[in-house]
Amino acid sequence: MNSSLNLLNIACIGCGVIGAGWIARFIENGVNVSIFDPGPKAELNVKRTLENAETAYANLTSIPRIKKGTISFKKSINEAVKNVDLIIESVPERVDIKQKVYSEIEQYCDKSTLITSSTSGIMPSELQKNLKSPDRFYVGHPFNPVYLLPLVEIVGGRNTSKATISRAKSIYKQIGMHPVHIKKEIDAFVADRLLEAIWRESLWLIKDGICTTAELDDIVRFGFGLRYAQMGVFDTYRVAGGDAGMRHFMAQFGPCLKWPWTKLMNVPEFNAELVELISSQSDEQSGHLNIREMERLRDSNLIEILKGLKKNNWGAGKNLRDYEASLKAFNDKNTSTTNMESNTIKTLKTRVPSDWVDYNGHMNEARYLDCFCEATDQFMKIIGCDADYVKKGGSYFTVETHIRHMAETKIGESLSIETQLISGTGKKMHLFHTMRNSSNVITATGEHMLIHVSLKTRSASEPSSNILKNLSTIFNRHSKLPWPKGLGNAINNPKPDQSFKE
Amino acid sequence: MNSSLNLLNIACIGCGVIGAGWIARFIENGVNVSIFDPGPKAELNVKRTLENAETAYANLTSIPRIKKGTISFKKSINEAVKNVDLIIESVPERVDIKQKVYSEIEQYCDKSTLITSSTSGIMPSELQKNLKSPDRFYVGHPFNPVYLLPLVEIVGGRNTSKATISRAKSIYKQIGMHPVHIKKEIDAFVADRLLEAIWRESLWLIKDGICTTAELDDIVRFGFGLRYAQMGVFDTYRVAGGDAGMRHFMAQFGPCLKWPWTKLMNVPEFNAELVELISSQSDEQSGHLNIREMERLRDSNLIEILKGLKKNNWGAGKNLRDYEASLKAFNDKNTSTTNMESNTIKTLKTRVPSDWVDYNGHMNEARYLDCFCEATDQFMKIIGCDADYVKKGGSYFTVETHIRHMAETKIGESLSIETQLISGTGKKMHLFHTMRNSSNVITATGEHMLIHVSLKTRSASEPSSNILKNLSTIFNRHSKLPWPKGLGNAINNPKPDQSFKE
Repeated sequence: MNSSLNLLNIACIGCGVIGAGWIARFIENGVNVSIFDPGPKAELNVKRTLENAETAYANLTSIPRIKKGTISFKKSINEAVKNVDLIIESVPERVDIKQKVYSEIEQYCDKSTLITSSTSGIMPSELQKNLKSPDRFYVGHPFNPVYLLPLVEIVGGRNTSKATISRAKSIYKQIGMHPVHIKKEIDAFVADRLLEAIWRESLWLIKDGICTTAELDDIVRFGFGLRYAQMGVFDTYRVAGGDAGMRHFMAQFGPCLKWPWTKLMNVPEFNAELVELISSQSDEQSGHLNIREMERLRDSNLIEILKGLKKNNWGAGKNLRDYEASLKAFNDKNTSTTNMESNTIKTLKTRVPSDWVDYNGHMNEARYLDCFCEATDQFMKIIGCDADYVKKGGSYFTVETHIRHMAETKIGESLSIETQLISGTGKKMHLFHTMRNSSNVITATGEHMLIHVSLKTRSASEPSSNILKNLSTIFNRHSKLPWPKGLGNAINNPKPDQSFKE
Repeated sequence: MNSSLNLLNIACIGCGVIGAGWIARFIENGVNVSIFDPGPKAELNVKRTLENAETAYANLTSIPRIKKGTISFKKSINEAVKNVDLIIESVPERVDIKQKVYSEIEQYCDKSTLITSSTSGIMPSELQKNLKSPDRFYVGHPFNPVYLLPLVEIVGGRNTSKATISRAKSIYKQIGMHPVHIKKEIDAFVADRLLEAIWRESLWLIKDGICTTAELDDIVRFGFGLRYAQMGVFDTYRVAGGDAGMRHFMAQFGPCLKWPWTKLMNVPEFNAELVELISSQSDEQSGHLNIREMERLRDSNLIEILKGLKKNNWGAGKNLRDYEASLKAFNDKNTSTTNMESNTIKTLKTRVPSDWVDYNGHMNEARYLDCFCEATDQFMKIIGCDADYVKKGGSYFTVETHIRHMAETKIGESLSIETQLISGTGKKMHLFHTMRNSSNVITATGEHMLIHVSLKTRSASEPSSNILKNLSTIFNRHSKLPWPKGLGNAINNPKPDQSFKE
């Protein structure tokens, strides 16, 4: 999503696993979706996917998100495709069915509406050939779960226009995805070619009794699967090749191809026996979990991987970070700007993801300090102690913190922090943060004493005159406010006569 | 590693990328390694890998680790293989070279020593056929980077004994790995068959100009690569199949195999042109990073993925959690046990991983509270407020916290916390944590007021009589200690006359 969020209306025709996944991703990003699927299980399937996606997005990011889009089930393609910007077809993988759907779509939709297929393998030139305006048609192939995996393969056909590809890319970026435009169309595009290769070799390994499905899966997820979550085929081998580089690696690996180990040349006979062998092993491996449980586990794992990679600003983690930045920008645009002369300063808006919760079933105490920390950072930026200033060697260190917990906070709760400057002259800065939930109840307060330091000498130093000036502007206003409740409190000492101050 | 850690001495013959990776994993887990490699770059290569591994392990876990093993380079196989439990051969992939090495090894090593090859494809029966004691030989095939990826494929040959496989498994578990025993030997075993399939299809896709190496890598790491880090081929499709299950999925997928999309039947011609095409695209994709930088990035990403999955106790993350549990058990066994009547109570020993550090170049303030939190949890366990007690509906909530920061803490620093009970009668518990670094300098103190609650009513309640009794035992001793410095302090209020207590 970019900061100039263009709210969209789209239509989804067909909502199996992929169609429902698209609906989930779009509505979680504020887009309204009208749906047509004549199947008896369509509504139930969408409901279930939306529940999974809601849980997933609540955990994926603590940045407050935009208002969810709406869904409406329609009784016909005619009703579904009117006044929408994009129509996503996710019906069964048969050219004749798909082409029939397009012809009906074209009869009713606007002229400027984009039409896309979720097909995982049929070439767009084939699909678009009977369209009246084939220029607006392309393939947008996503990956399950669509609401979490960022990849979408974009493939144009012979008659797809450049403008269509470029509009499509910007739509997917808006909903947090990573579109890859495949410039030459072939059956199955790129991802499913690689997946088919793995799948067929996997079938041989099970059929020949080399390993079980559980062993093969362990070999993937404890080995190269971990690598592929962050670097692909070529970068992985580039690193393995070492300083000698890719040419050296290729030269070493090359001869192996002449005596291939794999059985790739043959297609395993796909009979009832093979189906039974694999299904029964799979039942033994994972039959103790139902599909719903497995979906939740998968989603939760994917979220942790994305969050982990976000720390390194790498791959799908960079994608998540960019997405959060665009959410922040959108939020900032839609809330009042910071005014140093206002009553207290809004320093944080956040939303509690599931992994902030501890065994007591509420937000863990250390996460409160994470929030206060972020609020302090925001306050520092406002007074001019930003990344550039830090780079030049100045910063504030916290020397003392006092937190009061007033109310519990649960998963999904929205929290905001307002900050009052208690004093800010010389090297010291005394802040008081008040955290409130969406019902305006104070959940916690954080009182902090900070000292300005030189990052070179690691000892106290004077802040810049600009910072001092800003602090003074803010203090002018804040000193007129009443002192916040709890300011200067200490934890009650049971034997005050025996204690001593340093 | 299990809690009854058996310190080992091993030998590594050959130390390219894989041999050096083995050395790193073993010494980081307290095992001494003697090395033989006649190559001119051997020592440099090992040094560089050990540096990477040291950084990686410092970030992988905050549990204090056991003393590192030593390495010693030897001038001959003879010198290297004496008095070791395991000999790992990682020399070039040629049967004749490997067999020559084994014959020299057998001449000098003990009779009970295990001998293993790191080969990624040669069958163990072939390798072991000239050995005098082939029963102790097996293949242990690891994955780059060996010090981080948990997978090792264990493959026995015709003459490998069951006892050998079982000893091998326990050795790999001891060093935090996940051994998978492949029961039927074939060339290339399992992982490299799958990787070969992907590799060959990738070569076709580049050769045919469907996509670039950068695009293909993005398609992997933004798509199915994320899935494979947590579920393998079969579990992924099991979930995708939905409630209808694996049989349904197989039935749907089956027919596709009869019209395969991929070019797997052919082997792409491996000529200079293809090497140049791929190498130049790879340079364009990642030539801005040197291999060293890419190794560090890869390691850091893998660590974040492992840590992320650890939160869900899943796959490679469960493996990391088990590893940490065994480290903890080892530490506990080697430190004095908690005595409720001792002077203060040791509640935490930790080591600062890199992701605890903030833009000021030191441990972030919120991580101090994470540590104090963990110390409080440990104290709660000691007095009987453990997981079982929480399950029955009782717990303590923190209502107030006061932290004083006294000294900076850097990456890799060891920290310990001692806890003094200030008061603990009725519903209240008042704790004072003192955090020290390895030089015994106080880095921070944490003072906490907690209230015992019923998790059902979410309000204050009396703790169990057992907890009250334990608190009283501890208080008996702790009340005789001097009050800790800083107890009952408040943050200095600039205008105390204007402040008010609630």
